Amino acid sequence: MNRLKQLVYEANLDLVRHKLVLFTWGNASAMDRERGWVVIKPSGVSYNEMTPEQMVVVDLDGKIIDGNCKPSSDTATHLVLYRHFPEIGGVVHTHSTYAVAWAQARRAIPNIGTTHADYFRGPVPVSRDLTEAEINGEYELETGRVIIETLKLNGLTPDEMSGVLVAHHGPFTWGADPGDAAVNAAVLEETAKMAYLTLSLNPQAKNLDAFLLNKHFLRKHGNSAYYGQN
Amino acid sequence: MNRLKQLVYEANLDLVRHKLVLFTWGNASAMDRERGWVVIKPSGVSYNEMTPEQMVVVDLDGKIIDGNCKPSSDTATHLVLYRHFPEIGGVVHTHSTYAVAWAQARRAIPNIGTTHADYFRGPVPVSRDLTEAEINGEYELETGRVIIETLKLNGLTPDEMSGVLVAHHGPFTWGADPGDAAVNAAVLEETAKMAYLTLSLNPQAKNLDAFLLNKHFLRKHGNSAYYGQN
Amino acid sequence: MNRLKQLVYEANLDLVRHKLVLFTWGNASAMDRERGWVVIKPSGVSYNEMTPEQMVVVDLDGKIIDGNCKPSSDTATHLVLYRHFPEIGGVVHTHSTYAVAWAQARRAIPNIGTTHADYFRGPVPVSRDLTEAEINGEYELETGRVIIETLKLNGLTPDEMSGVLVAHHGPFTWGADPGDAAVNAAVLEETAKMAYLTLSLNPQAKNLDAFLLNKHFLRKHGNSAYYGQN
Amino acid sequence: MNRLKQLVYEANLDLVRHKLVLFTWGNASAMDRERGWVVIKPSGVSYNEMTPEQMVVVDLDGKIIDGNCKPSSDTATHLVLYRHFPEIGGVVHTHSTYAVAWAQARRAIPNIGTTHADYFRGPVPVSRDLTEAEINGEYELETGRVIIETLKLNGLTPDEMSGVLVAHHGPFTWGADPGDAAVNAAVLEETAKMAYLTLSLNPQAKNLDAFLLNKHFLRKHGNSAYYGQN
Repeated sequence: MNRLKQLVYEANLDLVRHKLVLFTWGNASAMDRERGWVVIKPSGVSYNEMTPEQMVVVDLDGKIIDGNCKPSSDTATHLVLYRHFPEIGGVVHTHSTYAVAWAQARRAIPNIGTTHADYFRGPVPVSRDLTEAEINGEYELETGRVIIETLKLNGLTPDEMSGVLVAHHGPFTWGADPGDAAVNAAVLEETAKMAYLTLSLNPQAKNLDAFLLNKHFLRKHGNSAYYGQN
Repeated sequence: MNRLKQLVYEANLDLVRHKLVLFTWGNASAMDRERGWVVIKPSGVSYNEMTPEQMVVVDLDGKIIDGNCKPSSDTATHLVLYRHFPEIGGVVHTHSTYAVAWAQARRAIPNIGTTHADYFRGPVPVSRDLTEAEINGEYELETGRVIIETLKLNGLTPDEMSGVLVAHHGPFTWGADPGDAAVNAAVLEETAKMAYLTLSLNPQAKNLDAFLLNKHFLRKHGNSAYYGQN
Repeated sequence: MNRLKQLVYEANLDLVRHKLVLFTWGNASAMDRERGWVVIKPSGVSYNEMTPEQMVVVDLDGKIIDGNCKPSSDTATHLVLYRHFPEIGGVVHTHSTYAVAWAQARRAIPNIGTTHADYFRGPVPVSRDLTEAEINGEYELETGRVIIETLKLNGLTPDEMSGVLVAHHGPFTWGADPGDAAVNAAVLEETAKMAYLTLSLNPQAKNLDAFLLNKHFLRKHGNSAYYGQN
Repeated sequence: MNRLKQLVYEANLDLVRHKLVLFTWGNASAMDRERGWVVIKPSGVSYNEMTPEQMVVVDLDGKIIDGNCKPSSDTATHLVLYRHFPEIGGVVHTHSTYAVAWAQARRAIPNIGTTHADYFRGPVPVSRDLTEAEINGEYELETGRVIIETLKLNGLTPDEMSGVLVAHHGPFTWGADPGDAAVNAAVLEETAKMAYLTLSLNPQAKNLDAFLLNKHFLRKHGNSAYYGQN
């Protein structure tokens, strides 16, 4: 459990290192699938005062298993993603500038270049607006549900698309572990900026053809990947 | 008094740390409500040469109580805010890039996303232009007055709206203490940037619905707040 | 060989220092023309864990001469450039933000100012799209071929134009040695940003007149250069 | 003379510190009016290898008085400014990003806010294009001449306007000493960015009224200044 707390602690610091969060914004978590435990950042604690010991352990229903702090206010969002997607081991939420801008503009980030295609198999989708009832009800749970709904509507698996923009709010990303989810959050911010600039230079820029998208995505993912040392 | 000088000193350095000021631009102050004293940055002293001892203590009429330096040339603006708003304990002025751009464009920053709504209960308003008579009269005092007028015209309390853009000039923010006012200045700059990018991506982007604005603002403010460890 | 490995190692770190790459993106290589060897970054190794010893040595056909790692997945692109351009000694590939935006927008970067003209003798051209057959065939080799084709179509030598944007993808640059190629990659990013901003301010901005372009390019290049200490 | 070399050395490093130059771009100089000597950066020497001893001393005709290096290739521009403006003691040239963008767009930077007005008494003007004959003749001398011509055409003194944009090229600034000229270069870049963003938000944004411009400029300049400790 200490190892997982350490990993979650470091993934949270990655968000600072990649300039994806200010103050206490954002959070990273991990899940230990064997024990059914989720480790997550405590709520409202600043990144430079945070310690690995402060990471909170909860079960999939949100019951605190270990820890003296309140877990992140976004815990219910993380938990519904872990419950629904057995293939993921880490979740990250940030308020990174360009990804938030796309979320606030309620536009999907187009797959407009190979940097994007190396990580995301298509445009990064944006959710529908939450209803007033959803917002006034179990808001954080509904935020997770609308992420799942958005992937489904777009016919995407969490392996193909490791992030969604929640409308008016910002990005959630995931991966095999919390470090992987943090990498996806950083790449999402960079590709959000590249797409922003590209559309300024050429408002008619189009999504990549499927053969170029797949070439790049599959260079790095799946059985035929040939990028890296493995 | 030394404790308050230290707090004001640190809040001024926060402005540098968050890249909200260049050279000698900007200033932070605090008020000790019991004694009626205001502690403020000295005028035109550079942040990396400044010491806590140089912070100037004045009363609410601007009379110097303690200190060997001249107080900030914006002192009269700070004082009128302290006189009018008994609930505030810190004031900050910066020339941060994006907030200044909105002030120069004479546009309120829309409440276009939840990052904004976590801190500001509605669009951050921009003041009317000062008149020639106001500018040639007690300019810094009139600057404070037009901030108060702007809040009033928008039906906002200083708790609901912790900052105003002075037209053609830039942002003033406040809070419970000078560190809090500096946080609000940093958040204002970040949300000013996010709103700038959002409107480039979607010129039709609208203010949040009241139920989403209130959900986020009240997660962090007031009696029903549930964000953080308290 | 160790000296060249060290140079290639340092040129790769230059890419990080100039903020041209994230994570494992990008790569720099050098060629020893006497021995016919090319030294290149290993594939998918992160810049802060990389050592000089890990640089991979291959011959011009891509056969590994020395090294325990797999060479960069872009090696075939570098090799075809070395085979075709005997005057170059270093090649660099990055995913730098503004250069990628121009590549994704499929627009050449105009020679719109003297900063550009000091390094590039005309607009930095963008390649045509690769065909589906090229992408599904020897993709990285075809990427190099289209760079060569792009220079040829524009009537440019690799000395006159030390970089090309590959459409949808990003910049490749070269030079006398890997450090020189890294400088050209950094300048390309900066002039890509300047051109982006310039066209926002003035969509009618035009390429420099030939006499101003040549004045600046030849101040720094060729026999009549008079910039610097030599 | 060593003191002046040290000041010029430090002003050159200020350009790096304020992120106004890359590689060997840009240069700062100072003039000792009593002796008639100008101290300037050597040509093409990188900022992190440069030493105070390498600063070159020339007279107003460009004859080298002291130093083992070639002076900056822009020396003739600096000298004509010193000859024409007896009130200045320092000159700086940079290729800072936003100021270059305005120069390349051939647009004056409007005096659109008080940050600008604190330093520049009106829009920062842009020069006319140099003619082919001027460029092929004494190019660097003509660059200085067109700066002088630009001030004159706009009815401005070097005290009122401490910088000019050379069309297609970039900013030159000056001041009482090289540190002051470097401050003006940094402020010019920041106000160039603020003006860029302002016009994106409000293309109809106008120059300040004279009474607000003068209020701010004269708070910091001239006999009635009341900003700072003096």
